[in-house]
Amino acid sequence: MKSKGYMGKIARIDLDTGTITRIKLDDTTVRRFIGGSGLGAKILFDHTSVETDPLGPENLLIFAVGPCTGTRIFNSNRYQVVTKSPLTGIYGEANCGGNWGEIFKKCGYDALVVRGASKTPVSIYMDEKRITVEDASSLWGKETFEVDEFIRAKYGTSAESAVIGPAGENLVKIANIVTDGKHARAAGRCGVGAVMGSKRLKAVVVKGTSEVPVASEDGIRQLMRRIAPQMNEFSRTFKQFGTSGGMENCEKIGNIPVKNWYQGPFEGAGKISGQRMAETILTGRYHCGRCVMNCGRVVKAADGPYRGMEIGGPEYETLALLGSNCLIDDISCIAKGNELCNRYGLDTISTGGVIGFAMEAYERGLVTEKDTGGVPLKWGSCDALLKLIEMVAFRKNIGDLLAEGVRNAAQRIGGTAAEFSIHVKGLEPPAHDPRAKMTVALGFATSNRGACHLQAFTHDFEEKKFIEDLGMPQLTDRFAKEGKAYNVFLMQNLMSMFDSLTCCKFVLFGGITVKPLTEFLNNTTGWDLTDGEFMKIGERLYNLKRMYNVRLGISRKDDTLPPRMLVHRRGGGTNVLPPIGELLNEYYEYRGWDEFGIPTDKKLQELGLEEYIHGRKK
Amino acid sequence: MKSKGYMGKIARIDLDTGTITRIKLDDTTVRRFIGGSGLGAKILFDHTSVETDPLGPENLLIFAVGPCTGTRIFNSNRYQVVTKSPLTGIYGEANCGGNWGEIFKKCGYDALVVRGASKTPVSIYMDEKRITVEDASSLWGKETFEVDEFIRAKYGTSAESAVIGPAGENLVKIANIVTDGKHARAAGRCGVGAVMGSKRLKAVVVKGTSEVPVASEDGIRQLMRRIAPQMNEFSRTFKQFGTSGGMENCEKIGNIPVKNWYQGPFEGAGKISGQRMAETILTGRYHCGRCVMNCGRVVKAADGPYRGMEIGGPEYETLALLGSNCLIDDISCIAKGNELCNRYGLDTISTGGVIGFAMEAYERGLVTEKDTGGVPLKWGSCDALLKLIEMVAFRKNIGDLLAEGVRNAAQRIGGTAAEFSIHVKGLEPPAHDPRAKMTVALGFATSNRGACHLQAFTHDFEEKKFIEDLGMPQLTDRFAKEGKAYNVFLMQNLMSMFDSLTCCKFVLFGGITVKPLTEFLNNTTGWDLTDGEFMKIGERLYNLKRMYNVRLGISRKDDTLPPRMLVHRRGGGTNVLPPIGELLNEYYEYRGWDEFGIPTDKKLQELGLEEYIHGRKK
Repeated sequence: MKSKGYMGKIARIDLDTGTITRIKLDDTTVRRFIGGSGLGAKILFDHTSVETDPLGPENLLIFAVGPCTGTRIFNSNRYQVVTKSPLTGIYGEANCGGNWGEIFKKCGYDALVVRGASKTPVSIYMDEKRITVEDASSLWGKETFEVDEFIRAKYGTSAESAVIGPAGENLVKIANIVTDGKHARAAGRCGVGAVMGSKRLKAVVVKGTSEVPVASEDGIRQLMRRIAPQMNEFSRTFKQFGTSGGMENCEKIGNIPVKNWYQGPFEGAGKISGQRMAETILTGRYHCGRCVMNCGRVVKAADGPYRGMEIGGPEYETLALLGSNCLIDDISCIAKGNELCNRYGLDTISTGGVIGFAMEAYERGLVTEKDTGGVPLKWGSCDALLKLIEMVAFRKNIGDLLAEGVRNAAQRIGGTAAEFSIHVKGLEPPAHDPRAKMTVALGFATSNRGACHLQAFTHDFEEKKFIEDLGMPQLTDRFAKEGKAYNVFLMQNLMSMFDSLTCCKFVLFGGITVKPLTEFLNNTTGWDLTDGEFMKIGERLYNLKRMYNVRLGISRKDDTLPPRMLVHRRGGGTNVLPPIGELLNEYYEYRGWDEFGIPTDKKLQELGLEEYIHGRKK
Repeated sequence: MKSKGYMGKIARIDLDTGTITRIKLDDTTVRRFIGGSGLGAKILFDHTSVETDPLGPENLLIFAVGPCTGTRIFNSNRYQVVTKSPLTGIYGEANCGGNWGEIFKKCGYDALVVRGASKTPVSIYMDEKRITVEDASSLWGKETFEVDEFIRAKYGTSAESAVIGPAGENLVKIANIVTDGKHARAAGRCGVGAVMGSKRLKAVVVKGTSEVPVASEDGIRQLMRRIAPQMNEFSRTFKQFGTSGGMENCEKIGNIPVKNWYQGPFEGAGKISGQRMAETILTGRYHCGRCVMNCGRVVKAADGPYRGMEIGGPEYETLALLGSNCLIDDISCIAKGNELCNRYGLDTISTGGVIGFAMEAYERGLVTEKDTGGVPLKWGSCDALLKLIEMVAFRKNIGDLLAEGVRNAAQRIGGTAAEFSIHVKGLEPPAHDPRAKMTVALGFATSNRGACHLQAFTHDFEEKKFIEDLGMPQLTDRFAKEGKAYNVFLMQNLMSMFDSLTCCKFVLFGGITVKPLTEFLNNTTGWDLTDGEFMKIGERLYNLKRMYNVRLGISRKDDTLPPRMLVHRRGGGTNVLPPIGELLNEYYEYRGWDEFGIPTDKKLQELGLEEYIHGRKK
C-alpha cells in the first residue's frame, strides 16, 4: 500500500531553460529518506558533485517538507531548504517556520528543486494546477516586507511567499530566505539566500489548498487530544517570554557570546531579556501555522529613535548575537537591527557573528575608519551595528568583506584575524558557548552544517531535563565528559528526524518525544515503525549528510572548535575547557565511524546506504 | 674596543648578476645578533618580504657561523643555513656539523649571503684572497659523494664543500645540503637544499686557514682544561653507541615514531639500536672538527645485498624515521637508505616522514601501484623504502608528490590524507613523540621552524637531568604539565644561543651549560656578559624569528600538533595526551606574548627589537 502524508511529486524547475518537470516520488525513497532535509540531502547528493560551485547554476536549491506537514498535527508545518552552501562550501541546510511549508505542501508537492540561473529576475508561482516562472524585474532590489505585500496584493492574502532581500540578490554569503512579511520567519543559515540570488529567483509564491491524505485521521486526533494538556501547560510559560526568557540564566551559566566570544560576564543581560522585552516594547505575540506555542514576538517602539517601528521582535539568538556579542544592551536597538536583517534578508546569527568580528578587528587596528566609510566600529555602538548591517547587505565598504562570512573575511584581512574569526567549518556559531556545556562543544564540532545548536539540540538536555524514551541517560554535570558523546549521538539522530518531518523541536519541551513522534508518523503514513526503527532512519539521514561532506574532504581535522573556544573567557565564567579529542574518540565509536570520522562500509551497509559508499575516499 | 671572534665581513653574492660584495659586519650587529642563526635571521628579515617566493631568485640562502667557530673551542665548528623555507613557507634554518664551518670562517668571513639564481650550474669558491663563481655544469646531476671527491681532487684535500645532490637540483622540498663526503654531515631540515638548487648552486667550496682572533687565548685554554675531565667522561659512553644508544629505552617510554606515528610498541627496536649496530655493521667512528665526542658511525656491510658498502652510518633520528616509522627493523637496509639519502641529498627525517605517510596512503588505498611504478608500498618493505628514496630524489612517480612534503602531498591526494600527514607548520617531526613528553609537545607546537626537537632540545631534560645554572627547576614527571612551559621557554632561548654560537648541543650532556658557554663567549669576544645577559640575547633571537613568522601570518592557530598526536597510539604506550591549549597559555605568559602568540610591543622593546614591531599585524 502506498504511504500517506505524501503528495508523491517533486517539482523540478530549470531556470537555465525554463523547463518545469514533475517527478514522481517513489514510496521506497520516502520510506528511506522521509522528507525535509533527509529527502533534500538525498537529491543534493545524487545531483551535485565535488566540483559544483555553490553559486553556479549547477547547484540545486531544494525546498522540502515532511509527511506531517499540512496535516492537522501542529508544529509540523516547517520547511527545509537544502543546498551546497556558498558560506561553508559543504552540505547546507536551513529550516524555517511560519506558514509557507503548509501552503506549499497543499500545492500537491513534497519538494521543489530549482536548478540553473535565470538571466533576468524571476519568481516562481505554484498552486495545485499550475507552476509558472514569472518576470520579477520590478521586485528586484526590494526589501522582503515590500515583496510580501506586493505578492499578497497580487495573488491574494492566502498566498505565501519565500523571498530574498537585497542581501540574497547581492550574493551575500550569510543571506537568508524570509517568509511571512513583517512577522518574519527565516530559513537563516548557510547562506541559502545567496544561492537563491545566484539563480535570480526573488520569490517562491505558493497558494495550495489541497488536503493532505493521512492514514488515520482518527489516530491523529486521539493522539493530539492526549498530548494537548502537556503542550498547553508548557506553552503558558513559553509564550510569556518567548525564547529569550532564559537570557539572564544563560548569562549566569556562561552560555551567551560576549564580545565576540572573548568575555565571560555581561552586565547588560537583564536589559536584553525576554522579561525586559515584555516590560517594554512587547505589544503582541504570533505563531507559525497550527502552533500553540506562540514564541513569536511583536514589538513596537513607542518613542526614541525608532519610534513607530512595529515589527516581529528579536528572539534569543538574535538578542545575544546582535546584543551581548557586540556589547550592546539596548533592546530597542537590537529590535531595529533585527528588523533591518529581516528587511534585507540577512541571517541574524551570522550577522551578529561578522559584526562582533568586525568590532574586534577595529579594536585591534586591523580594520580602520578608512574601511568603514568613517564609522567607528566601537563595542556597544548601536550606530555601528545598524550601519554594518546595511554595509553587509549592500556589500558597501567593509561590508563587502564581511558578506563573505568570518572565515573568508579573516583570510583576506590576514594577520591575527583568523584567531578571532569564530566559526566551525565556516559557519558562525549560534548563542551557545561550548565552554558551558560539553554536548554543545561536541555538537558544534560535529554538526554537518558547521557550528550549530539545532542539529544536536542538546543544550537544554544536558543537566536536569532528559528524554527518557530516547534511551538517554539523565546527565547531572554539564562540565563532565561522561555520557556526552552518547547524548550527542542520540540527539543528532533524533534531530535528523525532526528536520525531515519537518517538525518544530520546541515540542520536546512539551513532552512530545520519540514515542509520540513515531505515533504521529505512523498515523499519518500508515506505517508501523517501532521507536527503534524511527531512530535508525534518523541515524541513516545523519550519515547521509556526513557522507556528502566526506566526499568534499571533511574528516576529523574539521571536527573541531575555533581556538578561542578552547581557552578560558576573560573576566570569569566557566572553568572547564572542552576535551574535544576525547569527546570525538567516544563519539566516533558510537557512530561506528573510523578514527578519522569517516563512516565505515559496514556502518553504511547497516544503514542501507550502500550506494553512498562510493562517496568515501579511504 | 672591537669584539673578537669575528672576521667582520659578510660575503654577498648575487647570482643574477655575478656581483660579489664584501659587507662590513658592524660590532653593534654582532653584539645584538651574535652569529649563526641569529645573524642569519636578522639578514633574512631585513632583505626578504611576505611576497618572497622561497624558490625564487629574491630568496636568500645564508650560511653563517659564530664567534667561537674556528677557535680552539671544541664543538663550535658547526654552521647554520638560514632561508625562507620552500617546505614550510616560513622561517627556515638548518644546522650542520662536520668541518665546513671552521674552514669557511677561516676564509675570513662570518656569513655568506647568496641571492639571485644563475642561469647555468655554478659553484662558489672562497678562500682568504678570492671569491669566485665558477661553472659547475659538469657537476650538475652528480651525487654528493662524487662532488666531494671531485672538489678535493681539484682544490686539495683541505678544501671543504657544502653541496647539493640530485634532490636539491630537482627542487625537492625536503632536500638538504651535505658536507664531508662519505662521512656525511648535513644541514638537513626545511628544504634548504632546494633553495640552493633553485639558485643552480651546486657547491660552496671553502679553503681558509686564517687564524680567528680571540680576546683571551689563555682564558679559553684554562676553561677547556677545567671542563675536559667531564667531557671525556661523558664521551666515553656516548662514543660507544652514538646517538642511537638509547633506542630501546626510547621505544619503551613511547618516544619513537612507529607506523607513521600510529602505533605504540615496536618489537624490532632492539634490532635497530646503537648496541646492535656495534655488534654488527659498525667498523669505526668519526667526529666533527675538534670534537671529542665521536658520535659519527662508520658502518660496513660484510655480506648480504649491500655487501661492500662502507659509509657513514645512520644516527638515531634516521634509524627511527627510516626504521620504526616504516616498520622496518633491518639495520643494514636502514644504513643503505641512509646512504642513498646522503648521496642524493635528502633530509633523512623528512624522508622517513614522507615514506611512512606514503605507506599508510597505500595501505588505505589512496595510493596504488599505478602511482608507484608498480612497487607495493608495504609496511616493513626495504625494497619500497629504497625505491621511494630514489623516486623522491628524482621526482619519479609518486615521488614527485612526496617531494613536496607531507602537508602538500596530502592536500593533493585529498580525502583523509590530511589526517595522517604528520607535520607542524609543514615540517615533518623528528623521532620524539609529544605524547611521551609534555615539553616535546609544547616544543613541537611552538618551534619557529615547525616540528623540531632541536629548538627546545628538552627531551633529555624533562625528568632526571636538568640544567641548574639555567634556573630550570628539576622536573620529575614527564606527563605532568606543571613546569613544562617554563622549561621550554628557557631551553628555546638557550638553543637560540647554541645555534648562533654555532655550537653543538650535545655538550650539555657533558656539563657545559650556561656559565661555561658564557665564559667561552666572553673569552673569545672580550665581552663581559653575565649569564642573564647571555640568556636575554637568546630570548631576543627567538623573538626575532617569531616575528619573521608573525609577518607571514603565523599565530596561535599554527602553534598546535597534528590531530594524530592528540589521540592515543594503538597497541599501548603512554596514556596521556598533551593539554596543548593550557600549555600554550602558560608559555605565552612566560614569553610576554599576547593571547594569540604575538610578541607585544612592550616585549619587543624590552628585547631591543623596536625596529621589528612593524612586522606585527595586530
